[in-house]
Amino acid sequence: MLSNIRIVLVNTTLPANIGSAARAMKTMGLSDLCLVEPKVFPSPEATALASGADGLLATARVVGTLEEAVADCTLVIGASARSRTIPWPIMDARQAGEAARLESAASKVAIVFGREDRGLTNDELQRCNYHVCIPTDEEYGVLNVASAVQVIAYEVRMAHLMAADKEAGKELQEEDTRMPLEFIRWDKPLVPHDEMEQFYTHFERALVDAGFLAEDNPRQLMARARRIFARIRLDRIEYNMWRGIFTRVQDIAAELKKAKS
Amino acid sequence: MLSNIRIVLVNTTLPANIGSAARAMKTMGLSDLCLVEPKVFPSPEATALASGADGLLATARVVGTLEEAVADCTLVIGASARSRTIPWPIMDARQAGEAARLESAASKVAIVFGREDRGLTNDELQRCNYHVCIPTDEEYGVLNVASAVQVIAYEVRMAHLMAADKEAGKELQEEDTRMPLEFIRWDKPLVPHDEMEQFYTHFERALVDAGFLAEDNPRQLMARARRIFARIRLDRIEYNMWRGIFTRVQDIAAELKKAKS
Repeated sequence: MLSNIRIVLVNTTLPANIGSAARAMKTMGLSDLCLVEPKVFPSPEATALASGADGLLATARVVGTLEEAVADCTLVIGASARSRTIPWPIMDARQAGEAARLESAASKVAIVFGREDRGLTNDELQRCNYHVCIPTDEEYGVLNVASAVQVIAYEVRMAHLMAADKEAGKELQEEDTRMPLEFIRWDKPLVPHDEMEQFYTHFERALVDAGFLAEDNPRQLMARARRIFARIRLDRIEYNMWRGIFTRVQDIAAELKKAKS
Repeated sequence: MLSNIRIVLVNTTLPANIGSAARAMKTMGLSDLCLVEPKVFPSPEATALASGADGLLATARVVGTLEEAVADCTLVIGASARSRTIPWPIMDARQAGEAARLESAASKVAIVFGREDRGLTNDELQRCNYHVCIPTDEEYGVLNVASAVQVIAYEVRMAHLMAADKEAGKELQEEDTRMPLEFIRWDKPLVPHDEMEQFYTHFERALVDAGFLAEDNPRQLMARARRIFARIRLDRIEYNMWRGIFTRVQDIAAELKKAKS
């Protein structure tokens, strides 16, 4: 189904952007690239920036008009940075990903990106079924064209993967062991990273003092300890409680050592 | 709240990637960039690729270690391309965006990206609370570092905007495109409730033996201990590790008692 989804770049000026867009596509499992009157193509720069995705450039189709690029598509979505004089049905990137996925089960979809400096023309946008708008910062909306391709391709892939999971009934199966991700309201301030580093150092010292841990090879166990506390994240009171326990363990280990000598 | 979210780039080799990452951040409303030992910085190439986001480069902080970069953060999320020997709680980009949004209301968050060729080291990843993995094509997962920043920054912004919409009563039409935060995959079986009861009993015994806890009034501390482990939920290996530690503490306490008598 991903093979039914085409990325169309219109009048791209910089070869680097074509290469980066190809790479972005391939990381997300897309392979159908169509270039409408690129300024320079092929070019060594595009190939360099495509980094392992040069095969995708080799099979890219170059055409003279947007019409040719989207002729066989039943759904055409045009990337648009700003609202237009004639309002068009606008999707966000997530909706576009889901729409492309649904449509691609039966027929071809094109997602169209415009020029680096001024995007798609009004005429081109009016040839699209929908517009997709990536919500950028109000004061700085200059998303690079390859970055826009990356975000949309990512949403296409996410829609695809989520649907596949759903179909396989993998939302919550018994054979899967699951761990909850906890982001709940908390009353006490959480301890920042640098103090947690002191915590791990103290924990490790206490375990070594207690003879539980070989000083020369603590790695595996300490990695597990880190993973446990990374999951919980401690508040101030809990943190002090543990530090107190570690100190107590060190104290009795020291007393024992003294008593034995 | 977006100002509480920091992007950390570790040992970036190419100045172009630093510039592109800055641009990606700014388009999504992020402004806090921290560079850990970049190979070259500042550089004309980074500034050129930052496009209008060069102000963000001017305020970027350059530090010597990951520790310094994340010292004041309560939540640290590390970008990881592959699964690790010790599995860590892994979020997808959408969950990471939502987690960063929730946490940033109260404190600082860092999202950490590694080297172009080999990402973050195991040691660096173990200093993170969670890992975030962008689901790439199985056969071609070479996401450019600035592209990864773009995707994560986009998800952070989306989480932010969707929450703002919700607050304003503008509910999404397609509620099912939102990823629930509740569960992540885990490889080892979790310990059931009844064994956890034995765990608490053992923990309490060890603390009493170590003289940390008054046998007649353990309530408050044990309640906190329960709350901590209820939050984490332990898998089998972790459970056995703790039981081993408790036993060791009991052993040295018993030895000490014997030595003293």
